[in-house]
Amino acid sequence: MNVIFDYDRAHRVGLPEAVFCESKPPEVLAELVLELAAAARGPVLFTRLSSDVLRELGPQIAGLLDHDALSRTAYLAGHWPLREGFRTAVVTAGTADLSVAHEALRTLRFLGLPATLVADVGVAGPWRLQQRLDEINSHDAIIVVAGCDAALATVMGSNTPLPVVAVPTSVGYGVARGGEAALHSMLSSCAAGVTVMNIDNGFGAACAVTRIARLVSVRSVA
Amino acid sequence: MNVIFDYDRAHRVGLPEAVFCESKPPEVLAELVLELAAAARGPVLFTRLSSDVLRELGPQIAGLLDHDALSRTAYLAGHWPLREGFRTAVVTAGTADLSVAHEALRTLRFLGLPATLVADVGVAGPWRLQQRLDEINSHDAIIVVAGCDAALATVMGSNTPLPVVAVPTSVGYGVARGGEAALHSMLSSCAAGVTVMNIDNGFGAACAVTRIARLVSVRSVA
Amino acid sequence: MNVIFDYDRAHRVGLPEAVFCESKPPEVLAELVLELAAAARGPVLFTRLSSDVLRELGPQIAGLLDHDALSRTAYLAGHWPLREGFRTAVVTAGTADLSVAHEALRTLRFLGLPATLVADVGVAGPWRLQQRLDEINSHDAIIVVAGCDAALATVMGSNTPLPVVAVPTSVGYGVARGGEAALHSMLSSCAAGVTVMNIDNGFGAACAVTRIARLVSVRSVA
Amino acid sequence: MNVIFDYDRAHRVGLPEAVFCESKPPEVLAELVLELAAAARGPVLFTRLSSDVLRELGPQIAGLLDHDALSRTAYLAGHWPLREGFRTAVVTAGTADLSVAHEALRTLRFLGLPATLVADVGVAGPWRLQQRLDEINSHDAIIVVAGCDAALATVMGSNTPLPVVAVPTSVGYGVARGGEAALHSMLSSCAAGVTVMNIDNGFGAACAVTRIARLVSVRSVA
Amino acid sequence: MNVIFDYDRAHRVGLPEAVFCESKPPEVLAELVLELAAAARGPVLFTRLSSDVLRELGPQIAGLLDHDALSRTAYLAGHWPLREGFRTAVVTAGTADLSVAHEALRTLRFLGLPATLVADVGVAGPWRLQQRLDEINSHDAIIVVAGCDAALATVMGSNTPLPVVAVPTSVGYGVARGGEAALHSMLSSCAAGVTVMNIDNGFGAACAVTRIARLVSVRSVA
Amino acid sequence: MNVIFDYDRAHRVGLPEAVFCESKPPEVLAELVLELAAAARGPVLFTRLSSDVLRELGPQIAGLLDHDALSRTAYLAGHWPLREGFRTAVVTAGTADLSVAHEALRTLRFLGLPATLVADVGVAGPWRLQQRLDEINSHDAIIVVAGCDAALATVMGSNTPLPVVAVPTSVGYGVARGGEAALHSMLSSCAAGVTVMNIDNGFGAACAVTRIARLVSVRSVA
Amino acid sequence: MNVIFDYDRAHRVGLPEAVFCESKPPEVLAELVLELAAAARGPVLFTRLSSDVLRELGPQIAGLLDHDALSRTAYLAGHWPLREGFRTAVVTAGTADLSVAHEALRTLRFLGLPATLVADVGVAGPWRLQQRLDEINSHDAIIVVAGCDAALATVMGSNTPLPVVAVPTSVGYGVARGGEAALHSMLSSCAAGVTVMNIDNGFGAACAVTRIARLVSVRSVA
Amino acid sequence: MNVIFDYDRAHRVGLPEAVFCESKPPEVLAELVLELAAAARGPVLFTRLSSDVLRELGPQIAGLLDHDALSRTAYLAGHWPLREGFRTAVVTAGTADLSVAHEALRTLRFLGLPATLVADVGVAGPWRLQQRLDEINSHDAIIVVAGCDAALATVMGSNTPLPVVAVPTSVGYGVARGGEAALHSMLSSCAAGVTVMNIDNGFGAACAVTRIARLVSVRSVA
Repeated sequence: MNVIFDYDRAHRVGLPEAVFCESKPPEVLAELVLELAAAARGPVLFTRLSSDVLRELGPQIAGLLDHDALSRTAYLAGHWPLREGFRTAVVTAGTADLSVAHEALRTLRFLGLPATLVADVGVAGPWRLQQRLDEINSHDAIIVVAGCDAALATVMGSNTPLPVVAVPTSVGYGVARGGEAALHSMLSSCAAGVTVMNIDNGFGAACAVTRIARLVSVRSVA
Repeated sequence: MNVIFDYDRAHRVGLPEAVFCESKPPEVLAELVLELAAAARGPVLFTRLSSDVLRELGPQIAGLLDHDALSRTAYLAGHWPLREGFRTAVVTAGTADLSVAHEALRTLRFLGLPATLVADVGVAGPWRLQQRLDEINSHDAIIVVAGCDAALATVMGSNTPLPVVAVPTSVGYGVARGGEAALHSMLSSCAAGVTVMNIDNGFGAACAVTRIARLVSVRSVA
Repeated sequence: MNVIFDYDRAHRVGLPEAVFCESKPPEVLAELVLELAAAARGPVLFTRLSSDVLRELGPQIAGLLDHDALSRTAYLAGHWPLREGFRTAVVTAGTADLSVAHEALRTLRFLGLPATLVADVGVAGPWRLQQRLDEINSHDAIIVVAGCDAALATVMGSNTPLPVVAVPTSVGYGVARGGEAALHSMLSSCAAGVTVMNIDNGFGAACAVTRIARLVSVRSVA
Repeated sequence: MNVIFDYDRAHRVGLPEAVFCESKPPEVLAELVLELAAAARGPVLFTRLSSDVLRELGPQIAGLLDHDALSRTAYLAGHWPLREGFRTAVVTAGTADLSVAHEALRTLRFLGLPATLVADVGVAGPWRLQQRLDEINSHDAIIVVAGCDAALATVMGSNTPLPVVAVPTSVGYGVARGGEAALHSMLSSCAAGVTVMNIDNGFGAACAVTRIARLVSVRSVA
Repeated sequence: MNVIFDYDRAHRVGLPEAVFCESKPPEVLAELVLELAAAARGPVLFTRLSSDVLRELGPQIAGLLDHDALSRTAYLAGHWPLREGFRTAVVTAGTADLSVAHEALRTLRFLGLPATLVADVGVAGPWRLQQRLDEINSHDAIIVVAGCDAALATVMGSNTPLPVVAVPTSVGYGVARGGEAALHSMLSSCAAGVTVMNIDNGFGAACAVTRIARLVSVRSVA
Repeated sequence: MNVIFDYDRAHRVGLPEAVFCESKPPEVLAELVLELAAAARGPVLFTRLSSDVLRELGPQIAGLLDHDALSRTAYLAGHWPLREGFRTAVVTAGTADLSVAHEALRTLRFLGLPATLVADVGVAGPWRLQQRLDEINSHDAIIVVAGCDAALATVMGSNTPLPVVAVPTSVGYGVARGGEAALHSMLSSCAAGVTVMNIDNGFGAACAVTRIARLVSVRSVA
Repeated sequence: MNVIFDYDRAHRVGLPEAVFCESKPPEVLAELVLELAAAARGPVLFTRLSSDVLRELGPQIAGLLDHDALSRTAYLAGHWPLREGFRTAVVTAGTADLSVAHEALRTLRFLGLPATLVADVGVAGPWRLQQRLDEINSHDAIIVVAGCDAALATVMGSNTPLPVVAVPTSVGYGVARGGEAALHSMLSSCAAGVTVMNIDNGFGAACAVTRIARLVSVRSVA
Repeated sequence: MNVIFDYDRAHRVGLPEAVFCESKPPEVLAELVLELAAAARGPVLFTRLSSDVLRELGPQIAGLLDHDALSRTAYLAGHWPLREGFRTAVVTAGTADLSVAHEALRTLRFLGLPATLVADVGVAGPWRLQQRLDEINSHDAIIVVAGCDAALATVMGSNTPLPVVAVPTSVGYGVARGGEAALHSMLSSCAAGVTVMNIDNGFGAACAVTRIARLVSVRSVA
């Protein structure tokens, strides 16, 4: 296949090229894994790789990958070494947002950044967030994952001075289905300075935080 | 013109027919006011009657109407007598929602129901709602008026057992312009049992509350 | 899993936390049922739990649940005791709306409120609603469930002084598919004071009515 | 300018070419009127010609036209002779739909077809339509003009065996603004065989009825 | 089940109630067929009944129905007697529109009206329509079925004085998927007096034509 | 202001940078004209420059520009020399599309390419296009400008082997307003190989044709 | 079946009629293949023919077709002879766009035009396009295939004077799903003269290029 | 009026409450300015305050404000002191994006953060960004402001490891009007980790950067 992989990206952007697996046919994916494994130029992250597709790839390919079902991510040839010093809180509204939250967590882990999951603190039970607010604010950045009305993004953004990256999820029905309601709610948030990613883009949120972590690290040294 | 006015509506639905003035030409409105005044069959409410249009109607018509600029409402031949015993809180997120909130307040007043305005308690400053929560919960029903992310509807609905009628407003820019973001956020609210009206429909919210007030009054007597 | 369940909600909002099952993986649901059963803190309602998913949960879990296929709801540990004194009419346009109507009925039953189903009274056969109008109006609140043009919500709202909660359904094809046509029709209803829920949200409609029932009950006692 | 007018259309389609004036600059319109007047090939209909634009055309042009402000239509060189034998009822929900209804009425009149306006029979006051149902059904075809929830189209279609042409209007606010809610409601009508025109297209509805009238006339002779 | 069937509809509207089968569970459908068969009050039409669902209903039910796979329609207890004297042309753009065209044809046949299918005359090969134009114009009404750009509706409407009922189809991909592009093209047709049905609504188009046929028949007698 | 003008573009892309004037404040435009005039690096094209804005720029600026009101374009320092050998037909459906058609014509003229306007050949009068088909096909490329149903693009594309660039216009009302209906119709055209530009983008269509003309010229020489 | 095939199209439009297979039932497709094979009037192209559907057609039909799985195209009775002299570059952003790119490549090959695939040169790794820019510009026309933000179309269009035909793909999630984001981005491209096709329409792009190639060929001879 | 100003916000969120002036009536704004001036609790930022509205406020109010016309912002009682050590680059595609870019610049200045404007480096002239890339990358964070296809966000994000906050602008016509095309393009960016704000929200982008700057400052000290 001879895919043209952008190995230079980690140097240029501080982030490695990752492989988005959705809508790629299994035979193309399989070949890609083998090529990248043979190239042996360091760890590679695969996203949106469901257990079903993994099974289709066969045991040889699956054996090369460290796969996680909930987040639908896989590591080839390990991951980047863990760097202490920058901690991210991944905050979710409900159980249904867990898949996206774990995509963010696994991406952060791949990129060497520690992170904490603070799950199930949706606004419908306000005391739950209140109880964990100090813990959340002890981190360096916050990723908020929420669907439906996405009110958690606004409530979170109104209670922290930290950088907030909000990820709408496609969970929901009626006008909430697909995630546009959550996306629009987050973009219109009355909490100033909340930034937003595409629907279900846990990977992108982790990358956005990594850009900040790199800056903090560069600046702390300087 | 010989408009066919639905005088029977108050008996059938518990609510009188009101005159929605937007998109009616001034000469039609003027004639309508005179006809209704001549018929002398009790108070009539006019909604969406801006000061600019009122001026076009001329001083004779204006003299017949008790007009309020902010809410764009007018009363012809007074209003219904005030009935004690059912109090509504009209809660707003920001200054920009005041016009819609006042449409609800003026409609409630026309229908004889007392109401309290609790303004400027948007989620971006969470302590503001917290401070007034007990006061709000001492009422019988709540109308929430909010635009943009409309997070106030969810926060309010999660902190009260009262009936909540949510009104999205068209205030906002970008994806929030027109009010669809607020509408969808309210419809997708994770606070159970929050009901929703059309965008900017303060009049309708007041009518919905009046249906509840009538039921309470009928049932209390029984 | 250690889910953080909002047991306080029934006290704070008058409504218990319910479990929305769609988009939760079966293994997560199974664990949740077991945890909640073990906690033994009273009845729990599950919504959007299809027969297919129930089968995947296995006989042990299914044995713990009182499941209803048409409404896709289940009760764990029973339901709230029936309270007389507030009766809701659930009115539907056609056979295709029955699933949503039954979600409302089962939720009301779970919360202890009696309700009557008035099915198949769509506007295309106007005499059908006419025949049952007095019966419907003898209730305390009305839930209207309708798809497509949702004209039933307007016709119903124009013939009753009772609180009306309208639920659009996603039944339909062409411009009606997904339920937005019905939703927009209901939000634009020329019958004043008709409140609206998200598409297919029979559960939410029952909760809205429960808020009203609680108010009536509190006020009757006072 | 030398506009290429489709004089053959009346012969080919049974309907003459009409001039849609919106978005044409006044100087272009003025020239067109003069050219068509000079050509003297029979009556011409102008639609969407507002009083403001007419004023800009100047007194010479205005003197050539029989203009009606409410319907924004004008006749040049008279109209087609009145043909008895096919009568249309134009039924409207509210005062705000009058402009579109009159566009239909004036177009029918131009094409030589008698018509009756049945105004203000919206569903919110159901007795109003009931009172006039027999009168409406004594016509040959029905044009229903309605905005917002457009429930009148369904109620009308369910109470008549006549051909029904439904015209949604752009009157309304929130989700009803622009007329899409009414359009979608009419397209999804549960009354079978109701046909629909573009939003505000009173002219088109009159043309659709004229096609039917021509058929009836041809067939009656045969 | 005791469905409330609107047997009066044929008298009131000139069209019998039909059973729309999509989104009704098979067991509900089966019961309905048996009830209607037992009632024995004349022929009943079923629409959107796919071969797959028919199979699920079992051989007893299937034995009661005269089913057609392409149009997904079925007759119970026969159909209305064929009435000569009013002939409809059903004109389609391409092979992919055949299912909707046949729904119209089978509905017309059920209602007793003869019809001709003129297939494959899309605008991309303009000589095809030209060749059959006289044949089409020898009918009494035209149903145009087209997807994608739906240009056929405009070309047809510009070449006939007959009543034209246009049905957009959901066939297509990209911006044409779902049928909105075809619907909007038909509603915006520059051919005057073309009426439009909901996407894929071949049944409705046949009913609209039947309303016209009834009028012609009544008027011819008079 | 020191605008960074892309003078290299003509060399790199074969097209010069042009100045889009809409949404630029008059004072910024005025300064830009003066800077570009002072730089004296050849002719510059201004698009979307209305007569109203031109007036605001004052007589000094207006004196530097060769402005055309209908197309809202202006030339600074002349235009490119006319090159014979590649002729474009700009075909329009109706009078209302003339502004966009003239934007294409003036841009072609600026870029040195001759073009012919074939106006008023919309599909509603099919004989009009038929009459001029040979003339149109004697050109090298075709720009089709049409709004509403945009059927002209399909009819044109089905009757020519030439490159066709289709420009939807925002002319229209109801579902046609804004031009999306025309855009979607053109994108879904059943005439193969019709390319499409953004709504009202006559300038872009002229540039697309210029790319083809340059290729023909390069290849003819070779 | 007697399909009316437009054999005249190649002469009239320079492009043969092709068979779009999606949404045609297998039995209809099978019959069509046999009819066209029997007619023996030259090569025929089938598009959107998936391997799954091919299997359903059975071995006899499959034996008549030269099928390609990735592009979902098939040739019946060969293809047009290869004409040298006009070369197209098909440029793609990522692996996920390959299916659409191959539809363009196979269509070009069918029509006798040589083409080069330049894959994987998306903007996220900018050096990749830079490296191959001269190679791309040595062709006669460019087809750009891209999904998501479709930035490649703008970058490509800003770096070439060649005709550019852009094809948005439906690849993506969140706001990119379905391809509207890519389509709108391409239509709004700040690179002048980039033309656009419907989403996923690789076939149409190849046809558009073929129209240009024919012109070049005609003009070179002249 | 007694507005409830959230003075605590600067402490809680690191950002002061700002006054969004659009859709607030002038008399309300005037009163608000006077109240805030009297309270004398530090500098206050006003956004979306156009010169026209400022004029309506009268000279007394205008005299209290340091207003900037292009950015439509005003400072009351000065601004926060300038803090060295964190520098932001505000990068724009074209002249039309300047208003939004200046809103970001003025907000940063108000909050005490230095910033550089890098204007007119849109992708249509690729050498312009290339020339200034090193300069841009010498900053600590990047705000990208772009409309239409917003390709600049992707190109920028692919060439920097810094945090990138992208602001779509509402500049454009056709499918780009309103800014949704730019918003969706940015959300779908193939450059990983680019965060997005609401359309035209230069203020929010500045606040997002300020959250990062605060973190860097806190962490550098630690």
